[in-house]
Amino acid sequence: MSEPRADVVLALDDVHALALRVLIHHGMSLAHAHAIADVITQGQRDECHSHGVYRLLVCVRTLKKGKVDPRAVPTLRRPSSSIVALDAHRGFSLLSFKTGLPVLVGMAKQHGIAAMAINNCYHFSALWPEVEAIAAEGLAGIAMNPNHSWVAPEGGREPVFGTNPIAFAWPRPGGLPFVFDFATSAIARGDIELHAKRGDAIPPHWAIDADGQPTTDPHAALRGAMRTFGGHKGSALAAMVELLGGALIGDLTSQESLAFDGGVGATPCHGELVVAFDPKVFLGDDLDAGLARGERLFDAITAQGARLPSQRRFDARARSIAHGVRIPRALYDEILALVE
Amino acid sequence: MSEPRADVVLALDDVHALALRVLIHHGMSLAHAHAIADVITQGQRDECHSHGVYRLLVCVRTLKKGKVDPRAVPTLRRPSSSIVALDAHRGFSLLSFKTGLPVLVGMAKQHGIAAMAINNCYHFSALWPEVEAIAAEGLAGIAMNPNHSWVAPEGGREPVFGTNPIAFAWPRPGGLPFVFDFATSAIARGDIELHAKRGDAIPPHWAIDADGQPTTDPHAALRGAMRTFGGHKGSALAAMVELLGGALIGDLTSQESLAFDGGVGATPCHGELVVAFDPKVFLGDDLDAGLARGERLFDAITAQGARLPSQRRFDARARSIAHGVRIPRALYDEILALVE
Repeated sequence: MSEPRADVVLALDDVHALALRVLIHHGMSLAHAHAIADVITQGQRDECHSHGVYRLLVCVRTLKKGKVDPRAVPTLRRPSSSIVALDAHRGFSLLSFKTGLPVLVGMAKQHGIAAMAINNCYHFSALWPEVEAIAAEGLAGIAMNPNHSWVAPEGGREPVFGTNPIAFAWPRPGGLPFVFDFATSAIARGDIELHAKRGDAIPPHWAIDADGQPTTDPHAALRGAMRTFGGHKGSALAAMVELLGGALIGDLTSQESLAFDGGVGATPCHGELVVAFDPKVFLGDDLDAGLARGERLFDAITAQGARLPSQRRFDARARSIAHGVRIPRALYDEILALVE
Repeated sequence: MSEPRADVVLALDDVHALALRVLIHHGMSLAHAHAIADVITQGQRDECHSHGVYRLLVCVRTLKKGKVDPRAVPTLRRPSSSIVALDAHRGFSLLSFKTGLPVLVGMAKQHGIAAMAINNCYHFSALWPEVEAIAAEGLAGIAMNPNHSWVAPEGGREPVFGTNPIAFAWPRPGGLPFVFDFATSAIARGDIELHAKRGDAIPPHWAIDADGQPTTDPHAALRGAMRTFGGHKGSALAAMVELLGGALIGDLTSQESLAFDGGVGATPCHGELVVAFDPKVFLGDDLDAGLARGERLFDAITAQGARLPSQRRFDARARSIAHGVRIPRALYDEILALVE
């Protein structure tokens, strides 16, 4: 299977089987292992390398720290006819999402709008697989969560916010959805760490030093704080994520989550809010016209050569489905070593 | 009442009475006049000068163009137990908001999450008075709307999006809410026009010229397109506003709204989506703890000298309540001339 440049090429089924094998080997219940293997396979398929098989290393490392319960069984309650709340009981979040999704979808189809809260979960996946799963049901979805506080509010210098991602998906008739998923921080913390390792300067809008001044020194940035994207607007959105994905659902803010970690450096433990909208309930007989309006919007964007968000992922997806995925030999060996 | 610098100082009640008088004089029904006078008074009070009494000029100008029905009676329907939809019948939006608000609040208090769609409305107010009204009921609220397409998607050159504001409010125990309200464009179109009038250069991230290149020339910018804030992230949010505040609720996108205007230059006609969350339903017995968590977040921001969004407005509000508002004599005279 090896290639001239020593990459390993795997079919998607093989990626899934590899992920399952690693996760089960490290004590994960079958239900958790399946939920996580699904999303790792999707990440690798879409060439989101930090969310692909590389995550197996992160996952096993987190399991070894002993904070996550690898066999926790999520419990589900309905605080109202339109809210489903999952308690992950300190397990990984994905099984809770998978458990709650059909209930969320049913509630949204009945009421037009519904919410899912996931609590007490360890979270290491991107949000796009989740909002895509909602769009696959014909619904629009928004998801957001706090994480660990590395990001200063605009005008400040002390970290308060996490990278606080917001994801959104809109269903497209007969095709892949419109999807975005971005951090409200200017950049991922890993990108600053990478620059520090390489000794490269960072752009001044990424971070501030310990004195609150913009810095191009990645080491000074890591001692200081990251910045939000888009100045005070991104900062306002980051606060909204703390409130809706933390305070509203009775779960940790990013500062609380970092304190809870207690320096262990595990995957962050916190909550997540998901909201689903059913266009069919909003639009009734005008559903097709409403969806056609969305399509005209997308056409107006792409006809001028601008890209829709996620287009790069979707291109990668098509390649991976046709030809399998390519994994660097060193990474592949590192993963295999996890099951030896 | 006149001051040395020829400003006119008015008590808030006098601002309200002046607004009512102008609007009724120009044929507006009492219900519409009250809804608009309330919001104009709030704008003037908070020193949002473009949304204060200045708006009376805009409003009368729009009325004279004959597109808005100044006596339209909004009709209300409930597409589901959690969605209230208002048809403004080509009237201004505010009376529809006021009519639908108690229903939205009731639905949110019952189900925990609910939505309001306002359709076929002319829209010229900021969104913060609306999300503040939701927070005054103890709820969190989000509002958004498309408007006229002046803004290009990131990577493109043709306008597709409006300035597409997003507003959010979170209730704070015993105080003013946490509120933000911002355009997803880098700047307001009026700011570029102002620079053009003055002959000043604009920052390169505000707009592109007709060839799609960043420009510091405000005239080239007005012939080209405005940019979104925050690069591709702001662009993604602007698209979400078109989808949720347009396609989802069966109303116009910003391109459609501009086409509908047909070069008349009236206040934009389009829809608006409002979502309300009841923390009490989400949190149950943990409501106070959840709200306290929000307060700790705000403390962490302000303790380091960073500002909460809207703080400037709230400071102005306190001044205006204590001392009245100050209106330039020329503007005041122009408004008085509307009722002569």
